[in-house]
Amino acid sequence: MTPGHAIGIDLGGTNIKAALVDASGAITYKAATICQPERGAETVISEMAQICQDLLGKGSLSAEDVVGIGLGTPGPLDLTKGEIVRAANLPGWTAVPIRDRLQELTGMPVVLENDANAAAFGEFWAGAGGGCGDMVMLTLGTGVGSGVIVDGRLLHGHFQNAGELGHMIIVPEGLSCPCGQRGCLEQYSSAGAVARRAIAALQAGETGKLRAILGQAGTVSSRDVVEAALEGDPLCRRLWRETCLYLAIACVNIQHAFNPATVVLGGGLAEAAEFLLIPVREEFRQNRWRLMVDVPEIVLASLAYDAGVIGAAGLAWAAWRQRPPQ
Amino acid sequence: MTPGHAIGIDLGGTNIKAALVDASGAITYKAATICQPERGAETVISEMAQICQDLLGKGSLSAEDVVGIGLGTPGPLDLTKGEIVRAANLPGWTAVPIRDRLQELTGMPVVLENDANAAAFGEFWAGAGGGCGDMVMLTLGTGVGSGVIVDGRLLHGHFQNAGELGHMIIVPEGLSCPCGQRGCLEQYSSAGAVARRAIAALQAGETGKLRAILGQAGTVSSRDVVEAALEGDPLCRRLWRETCLYLAIACVNIQHAFNPATVVLGGGLAEAAEFLLIPVREEFRQNRWRLMVDVPEIVLASLAYDAGVIGAAGLAWAAWRQRPPQ
Repeated sequence: MTPGHAIGIDLGGTNIKAALVDASGAITYKAATICQPERGAETVISEMAQICQDLLGKGSLSAEDVVGIGLGTPGPLDLTKGEIVRAANLPGWTAVPIRDRLQELTGMPVVLENDANAAAFGEFWAGAGGGCGDMVMLTLGTGVGSGVIVDGRLLHGHFQNAGELGHMIIVPEGLSCPCGQRGCLEQYSSAGAVARRAIAALQAGETGKLRAILGQAGTVSSRDVVEAALEGDPLCRRLWRETCLYLAIACVNIQHAFNPATVVLGGGLAEAAEFLLIPVREEFRQNRWRLMVDVPEIVLASLAYDAGVIGAAGLAWAAWRQRPPQ
Repeated sequence: MTPGHAIGIDLGGTNIKAALVDASGAITYKAATICQPERGAETVISEMAQICQDLLGKGSLSAEDVVGIGLGTPGPLDLTKGEIVRAANLPGWTAVPIRDRLQELTGMPVVLENDANAAAFGEFWAGAGGGCGDMVMLTLGTGVGSGVIVDGRLLHGHFQNAGELGHMIIVPEGLSCPCGQRGCLEQYSSAGAVARRAIAALQAGETGKLRAILGQAGTVSSRDVVEAALEGDPLCRRLWRETCLYLAIACVNIQHAFNPATVVLGGGLAEAAEFLLIPVREEFRQNRWRLMVDVPEIVLASLAYDAGVIGAAGLAWAAWRQRPPQ
């Protein structure tokens, strides 16, 4: 009998999220716990195995009812070895053989993928991707994460690190990025960058609605910038316009690189919804070429914070379908 | 018995080039004739069929000794229908069913591909690609053509027009491109752009070695710019430095998009050889990220003007290998 579920896990620096996901991409049961990476990889992997058992229990299932586990984690990863090479938000973890350890503890096959790719696969499979095999997702959070789907599969490339579109250089010799480059997309169009740029402008003497918030709270968030822009604050409107312009230019470059049917925008900044989508589409329309109408649809993500677990489970389903019969 | 050859054809606005190519990518016989697109598509297709017959004659071969014909043409193409939709340098040709007509006239299976992709496939298969499955080629000619190889196959994307990297926006709100965009790579780092930018600078009153050439010949070429830069002319050195910088930024963006093992530089500008390669590599080194060493090797193309026919033949070989046994 065909198993009816896969388990998807989204391992982050602060939370472990997991879900039992059926063959259509719908979540049957969810589970979550706090991640304490400082307790060591082995402890955290044991906790993940326990969550898998808990999910099986909730569904009254045994391991045979599940096609496998998909695991999304921060990277960089070595996908061949199934290792976390290192990860900024999992301090002290280096060369962790997380795939094989979780496999040993659970007795289920595990597919490892980086978290941004897993989220992109989730939107492709069961979200805003609309069932088309060629899709790019940008996750506009602290940075800009991304994943590229080509012909129904995640693009990895020779070094297994394709689709790092947050580090596409959009402004030559532009703002410095901690990655060592200058002018990266994520210095302009991430939630983190929007807040940082507002603070920098205020500290440089510009005025506006956010001055009071900065004075009281000591910081401002991208949400503050969006709200002030909505209320007509000139500084925030200018920053928002630039955010959307650079994002639209990134979409033009994505169009010419991958020619996808769909570009999906997710992450914290996408909570601005139409206030993000409409100007990005308009700037894209103004900045795109006229030679062909090979125009991707730019849409908002639809799975929100479940994209990671659903996508990870989808990768377990995909691996199961490709496995030779035994 | 396995056939020993494929035919590769490179159809351009001024020439038809063709070759008999063996399974290793080596050319056995070549043929070429002038292309007169104004005489109509049907006439030109008949001439291509005649060239195929001539090549078979030179090799004392019959159609059964050949796996098929690969045909590279200007685009945009409809690969599903096997049609040239239209092409700037084939005036009057619209919706030309070139694949099926050539197939009917020759009795051999024909694979259609756009010319930049065919050249990229040639370098991948039998040139500078070095046998690695993930490669990007930039052809720096009148414009910037490109082709992307993912896992040993050309990337097409949903609209069959992926890898148009000459229209990657490198400078937001930069120089106008006939495509309707601003700041496209091909406005900075093509042979055509190098010449145009030199002329514009001279016409704006800048001085230098090229002023005499412009006065006498009424124009300057990218080769003139390279030679003057080699001789230390300040204007040409500045233009060349910018050309190499923007090309290096394109390589950074290619790295993060596709993560290829190799980026191959070809076309007229690549005739500058080390004078192009060394500064592009140096600018790439200075502008790339420090997070990972997922660094493509940047190399010069090795097949020169044969890349198109060899790549087209390679696509015929690839199609033959994928054909189900009869």
